[in-house]
Amino acid sequence: MEKTLKELAELVGGETEGDAQIRIKGVAGIKEAGAGEITFIANMKYIGELASTHASAVIAAPGVDVGPRPCLRAKNPYFTFAKVLTFFAPKKKFPKCVMGGAHVSPEARIGQDATIYPGASVEPGAKIGDRSVLYPGVYVGEGSSLGADCIVYPNVVIREGVKIGDRVIIHGGTVIGGDGFGYATDGGKHFKIPQIGGVLIEDDVEIGSNAAIDRGALGDTIVRRGTKIDNLVQIAHNVVIGEDSIIIAQVGISGSTELGHHVVLAGQAGLVGHIKIGDGVQVGAQSGIMNDLETGKVYTGSPAFPHMEFMRVQAALRKLPELRKRVMELEKKLEKYTRTEE
Amino acid sequence: MEKTLKELAELVGGETEGDAQIRIKGVAGIKEAGAGEITFIANMKYIGELASTHASAVIAAPGVDVGPRPCLRAKNPYFTFAKVLTFFAPKKKFPKCVMGGAHVSPEARIGQDATIYPGASVEPGAKIGDRSVLYPGVYVGEGSSLGADCIVYPNVVIREGVKIGDRVIIHGGTVIGGDGFGYATDGGKHFKIPQIGGVLIEDDVEIGSNAAIDRGALGDTIVRRGTKIDNLVQIAHNVVIGEDSIIIAQVGISGSTELGHHVVLAGQAGLVGHIKIGDGVQVGAQSGIMNDLETGKVYTGSPAFPHMEFMRVQAALRKLPELRKRVMELEKKLEKYTRTEE
Amino acid sequence: MEKTLKELAELVGGETEGDAQIRIKGVAGIKEAGAGEITFIANMKYIGELASTHASAVIAAPGVDVGPRPCLRAKNPYFTFAKVLTFFAPKKKFPKCVMGGAHVSPEARIGQDATIYPGASVEPGAKIGDRSVLYPGVYVGEGSSLGADCIVYPNVVIREGVKIGDRVIIHGGTVIGGDGFGYATDGGKHFKIPQIGGVLIEDDVEIGSNAAIDRGALGDTIVRRGTKIDNLVQIAHNVVIGEDSIIIAQVGISGSTELGHHVVLAGQAGLVGHIKIGDGVQVGAQSGIMNDLETGKVYTGSPAFPHMEFMRVQAALRKLPELRKRVMELEKKLEKYTRTEE
Repeated sequence: MEKTLKELAELVGGETEGDAQIRIKGVAGIKEAGAGEITFIANMKYIGELASTHASAVIAAPGVDVGPRPCLRAKNPYFTFAKVLTFFAPKKKFPKCVMGGAHVSPEARIGQDATIYPGASVEPGAKIGDRSVLYPGVYVGEGSSLGADCIVYPNVVIREGVKIGDRVIIHGGTVIGGDGFGYATDGGKHFKIPQIGGVLIEDDVEIGSNAAIDRGALGDTIVRRGTKIDNLVQIAHNVVIGEDSIIIAQVGISGSTELGHHVVLAGQAGLVGHIKIGDGVQVGAQSGIMNDLETGKVYTGSPAFPHMEFMRVQAALRKLPELRKRVMELEKKLEKYTRTEE
Repeated sequence: MEKTLKELAELVGGETEGDAQIRIKGVAGIKEAGAGEITFIANMKYIGELASTHASAVIAAPGVDVGPRPCLRAKNPYFTFAKVLTFFAPKKKFPKCVMGGAHVSPEARIGQDATIYPGASVEPGAKIGDRSVLYPGVYVGEGSSLGADCIVYPNVVIREGVKIGDRVIIHGGTVIGGDGFGYATDGGKHFKIPQIGGVLIEDDVEIGSNAAIDRGALGDTIVRRGTKIDNLVQIAHNVVIGEDSIIIAQVGISGSTELGHHVVLAGQAGLVGHIKIGDGVQVGAQSGIMNDLETGKVYTGSPAFPHMEFMRVQAALRKLPELRKRVMELEKKLEKYTRTEE
Repeated sequence: MEKTLKELAELVGGETEGDAQIRIKGVAGIKEAGAGEITFIANMKYIGELASTHASAVIAAPGVDVGPRPCLRAKNPYFTFAKVLTFFAPKKKFPKCVMGGAHVSPEARIGQDATIYPGASVEPGAKIGDRSVLYPGVYVGEGSSLGADCIVYPNVVIREGVKIGDRVIIHGGTVIGGDGFGYATDGGKHFKIPQIGGVLIEDDVEIGSNAAIDRGALGDTIVRRGTKIDNLVQIAHNVVIGEDSIIIAQVGISGSTELGHHVVLAGQAGLVGHIKIGDGVQVGAQSGIMNDLETGKVYTGSPAFPHMEFMRVQAALRKLPELRKRVMELEKKLEKYTRTEE
């Protein structure tokens, strides 16, 4: 799998500079890289470390001075690094068959070259797309479908009535299509509202470990194309998440809330139900969102407000004990003053 | 499964108004409902949409003007909607047997018409009640018992020494009876305290996906009848949750804390250990509870205080930078004033 | 398993006082203990309950007045209680073999007296140490290794390239070695960065239920010896956690953050990525950590500051509405004053 720098540039895009015939056999961080490896400068903070790296070549943006080292010039060096790493990363070989010990219904449809490991279950009417992989302990319920080239890691639960697109990756232990949390309360007792909607996960979505995406109450819960969801995230019934959004670990989104595209929710943020989050909104870690948020803005705090305002309030908050003293001081002065006047 | 409005009223309670012979074949939201479907008005916010709905009939409280449409009058329309939906919701047919590929100990007791799917494990001394269902990958440990009519979704773990009542629903990936988090520290090393208590889950409890309910250290962790627990909730050892409580997603309850009945904990709230939460207490989302809470009150914030006070403090907090300016202004004025006096 | 108090003292250390021949058959809390059981006083808050306990003996620190009851004197009574409880706790007997229905690759290495339950999977090149136990539904990926005397509860996922030491306990549903959450964004699309690092879990670590520990992007994610991790904790790629740390439920630690030894993170705390937490740092529940933290200090709040300062700010915050009134009052007085002067 060794390549010359020139061959690599042809594979992933970009121009070479210096010795294009140098042979590259892997990629590593700037401190860890050794001879034969290529590293990258995506953050100018690390430019000082270039002098001492043992890497044989470096990926950098045009105009960045990388010294005498051979260079692969790319507009987005981090993206190019990702492509080079993808090229060098070991690829797992799958058996491409239904293995002994898998529980596959004769009424399920399994695509060409799909792999179903021992201990996975595929129920009647379910469809698994070409080249998709179900690891051990995966459950796919009645009538659910996965597209082509999906990877579903061990012990993922996909309940009935879930539709999943192509190239979707789901990490271990995640549950998709669990019942939404809905009850009608009468006389102090909670009566379960059947959750008869489904879940739609579009192409190129990735979902982390031990997340939970509930099925819709009546309509579907939807995660649109290209969105990435981290570990332990909670997505309630009838939530809609737009395209190319980023939902970081332990976020919770309550029922029927709708997110636009390119939304970023930082870790442990929580959103109440039935609100709308505009395209490109960014929400800070641990923030609590109670209202609709405007397109393209940044919000922080619990309850959240616009990020700049949050920063001003936080700065003032830290000085609050001192402010109390100043007010007390003023009160004393004014009282003394008033008294001397009388 | 089509019914006349009159037949439906007899099934779920309530009075008909208008054409009681109209045939109903399903239920849907006010915007989505089509001909032959019944919809409902539970929130007066949506009353305006009645004019344009395609529903053939509507469920509404007495006195609500629904126009000329046939109506099912019910005191609690949302509850009646839930009952109608339960009637129309598709019912899954279970095989009602121990299926091939299930790992059931000969020393386990399996009730009549129970279903044990392939890949489920039932250990010696465990009891599964009549008509209960264990999906693939469910584990039931030694001596644990489930009552009748339970549904345990795929990959749920029920460790040894857990007692579960009737009609309990447990969603995918949840772990019940994991060891509590208890250590005695000596010389900077943490020595595990054996967790020899169990877990008791009473009738009609529902538990969401990927939740964790730890076993007691010495006595039991207890969840009382009718309580509903959402996804990714953490319940530590020896917690007691009273009847008919609602614990929303990602809440964490620390060891030995006791909740009364009809408590509501909103999403991502956290409770420290060894406190008592009164009956009917409501805790806001992301709140942090450090002390006992009084019966029937509402609390918000981290650390939390009574909700109305929290709202006042939040309002004042947002104006804190402005308050700082006002104090500075006062200081200037007073100083100037004092100086002119001298 | 009955022992005399004298025998017990020899087993767990400590001196006896009073009748050393009294027979002890178990251990229980001070309220629950009955005849033949030993209880303990670790917290002086409960000393008053000694008068009414039915315990036959008590574990207490030297100098604590326990009345006429036989006593086991120990410097750290809670630790001694833990050791006594460990002695009396029921020990599960394992089959010590690969059971029928387990999916073990012929290229895996299984240690002596190890137990692999039905429905567990061990992939090629994986190693399971002597006496270790894999419960049903556990998955161990290619080339991963577990040391001796580990217990891995049902449905745990250990992906490829994970190294686990001796005496490690992993509770149900936890996922170790899931891909880290890393993307390079180009033209608004998120391109997956292969996560080719592994995970290293050292000896005597315990990990709770449904936690997620991601594999490193390039190097390893590391959890050092003796650290205890609670349920539903999120540990991102390339995090390093030092020895003997305590990570309580629902904590989230972002990528590449490094913790020293003996760190305590209370429940639901969140740490951003790429920061350093000094040895012995304690972080309060629900705190949000955005910066490096100094060795040995206590921090609280979101965003967090030193605990004592946090307490002062919180006290002032609660009185903020009153402070606003006082400022208004001052403004009025000063205005009136100024006016009368003119």
